[in-house]
Amino acid sequence: MPPVSIRIEATDGDARVGRLLTPHGVVPTPLFMPVGTYGAVKAMAPDELSGMGYRMVLANAYHLALRPGARLIEELGGLARFMGFDGAVLTDSGGFQAMSLARLNSITDDGIRFRSHLDGSPLMLTPEGAVEIQQQLGSDVMMALDDCTPYPADHGRARASLELTARWAERCLRARQNTDQALFGIVQGSVYADLRRLSASQITGLDFDGFATGGLSVGEPKAAMREMAALTVSMLPASKPRYLMGVGTPADLIAAIGMGYDMFDCVLPTRNARNGTAFTSAGRVSIKQAVHARDERPLDERCDCRPCTSFSRAYLRHLYHAGEILAARALTEHNLYYYSRLMREARAAIASRTYRAFAAHALELMASGREEQGDHV
Amino acid sequence: MPPVSIRIEATDGDARVGRLLTPHGVVPTPLFMPVGTYGAVKAMAPDELSGMGYRMVLANAYHLALRPGARLIEELGGLARFMGFDGAVLTDSGGFQAMSLARLNSITDDGIRFRSHLDGSPLMLTPEGAVEIQQQLGSDVMMALDDCTPYPADHGRARASLELTARWAERCLRARQNTDQALFGIVQGSVYADLRRLSASQITGLDFDGFATGGLSVGEPKAAMREMAALTVSMLPASKPRYLMGVGTPADLIAAIGMGYDMFDCVLPTRNARNGTAFTSAGRVSIKQAVHARDERPLDERCDCRPCTSFSRAYLRHLYHAGEILAARALTEHNLYYYSRLMREARAAIASRTYRAFAAHALELMASGREEQGDHV
Repeated sequence: MPPVSIRIEATDGDARVGRLLTPHGVVPTPLFMPVGTYGAVKAMAPDELSGMGYRMVLANAYHLALRPGARLIEELGGLARFMGFDGAVLTDSGGFQAMSLARLNSITDDGIRFRSHLDGSPLMLTPEGAVEIQQQLGSDVMMALDDCTPYPADHGRARASLELTARWAERCLRARQNTDQALFGIVQGSVYADLRRLSASQITGLDFDGFATGGLSVGEPKAAMREMAALTVSMLPASKPRYLMGVGTPADLIAAIGMGYDMFDCVLPTRNARNGTAFTSAGRVSIKQAVHARDERPLDERCDCRPCTSFSRAYLRHLYHAGEILAARALTEHNLYYYSRLMREARAAIASRTYRAFAAHALELMASGREEQGDHV
Repeated sequence: MPPVSIRIEATDGDARVGRLLTPHGVVPTPLFMPVGTYGAVKAMAPDELSGMGYRMVLANAYHLALRPGARLIEELGGLARFMGFDGAVLTDSGGFQAMSLARLNSITDDGIRFRSHLDGSPLMLTPEGAVEIQQQLGSDVMMALDDCTPYPADHGRARASLELTARWAERCLRARQNTDQALFGIVQGSVYADLRRLSASQITGLDFDGFATGGLSVGEPKAAMREMAALTVSMLPASKPRYLMGVGTPADLIAAIGMGYDMFDCVLPTRNARNGTAFTSAGRVSIKQAVHARDERPLDERCDCRPCTSFSRAYLRHLYHAGEILAARALTEHNLYYYSRLMREARAAIASRTYRAFAAHALELMASGREEQGDHV
């Protein structure tokens, strides 16, 4: 029995509803993981996440390894306990941040050589090191170190990148020592259908506990993202969890659930909240706008989250412009509540085999507010 | 029947326990008001304040008048409703901020002429204007505009300041139109006993609903603060609420409750929290320090607040250094919980006529952690 596995309970077309079994509890799927970069989902307390139905969060191995250090978290009983979170944790490998945040980085077959974005100290992230760090963090799901292909990349570069990813994947599996933690492999291939197929066949040929589609939402056109996401998921084994990394908007999630993905993470609901943007059933609302100055309505009239039952748009706009922490808290809580409800409703729709109608209705509602607010879904 | 009144239920020496009756509910006294400058207690949600036992908060008329504007808050049903706070609100007059934050200010008999610290626009705050703004804000307790004497001030300057405060006090009373809101007068007099007596006799001769001791905690030595606070409270009528403005540390509150004050406000618990300092039963704890890096204990082992039951010092230190909002939230919640419990225990001690023993024990506990942490009570 692998440390993390999925039980599919119903399907509707390609969409599937089930349960992810983890050492830290059972998580209904499809699931969305809020991003807790430094071991905290920004502005939220862990009991609030549980209260909104979140049973699993994502944390960044790169950031935590630099501060406070993976060994310290290991000493203190692992990441979930350190965070005071009563649920499961997935850690990324740190590779994406080592490439995007760190300075003077270079990739060799051995790994990623970089300098800390905090103090400039020289560091090396190898596949073996990425697994060791994640074992120290004690996450339920570890991610293999991959070479996240940037966009755009020509066919040759994308191919070299996925071949490196495959070699690193094997090294990650060999390096793994802890059988209490799952290890997921990542498919690359940029926006090239043949390369996605090649990478999927390489990675799914290895004994991972689950599979992720990586290298999307990195700047490519939305249509290419969806096309590659759909192509890749069709090559991932149905018996294991399928994870679309870093995606996305509510509309993206609705589409990807329809393709058969089980797991998602994205900074959008939390980052946009801190920038003053709320996701609502009628599309996005930018709370900064002057039109809300005297508006007594809540962010979302169809929402029963704590901020929507307590605060007017007028008050939230005031808090945002005054720089009050409560603005970030309220919009983050609302957005995460919205995402949680979206996933809950999606699961119910799949279970009752009405997913297509649910998706169409949700997208229509989101579009309904578009004109009024001058915003995009 | 005045809009706000106090019912004393028991006394112990000069200390008194009772209930403040306000249009927005009954508040047990002695009471501490968290400071909600912009209509939000920084980092806290209003239901969390209620949950910790806070039934009354303070808000700053100056800040709210500049942004989002007092008239807007009036349109939206007043400050408590705007904030979503199920309790009472006291507003200061705005005079202190107009003097300390604004630029190019000058005081004449007419009022305070200043420029907004936001956009430099020229503004004038008169006694009549201060009352009008607070009537628009709809607070339960309005404060008269006073000339808060800076420290140090020589005898002549302090005398002129309290005389101006007395003239403005009369104008505030005449300007008041709304009988649903209480108006409190403020005693000045700097650190001069004769001037404190003179100001107290002037202000208590006017028909205010309660009286405050102002002009303390503005830089004078702690001994002078306590001496003037004690002298002034002895001249305030026992039948009305007695409010010591801007004080203070836990030890200050214990002393001032012993003098017979009923009401307090201070930014210390909230501001210090954001700077990484917690008030605990064993004195102050600076969470920034390296000594906490691997400390699994809570901030305060005698505390049962949510952060103390969820988070280790090691995690809080990490959050603080990572700049996470949750650090500000957790320390603010702990500090306000600590202050709330201090007031609750003080009330119980007065009611059981054991206040002197309670005060001695609390001060001894606070001092016990002093050496270990290298901090001051």
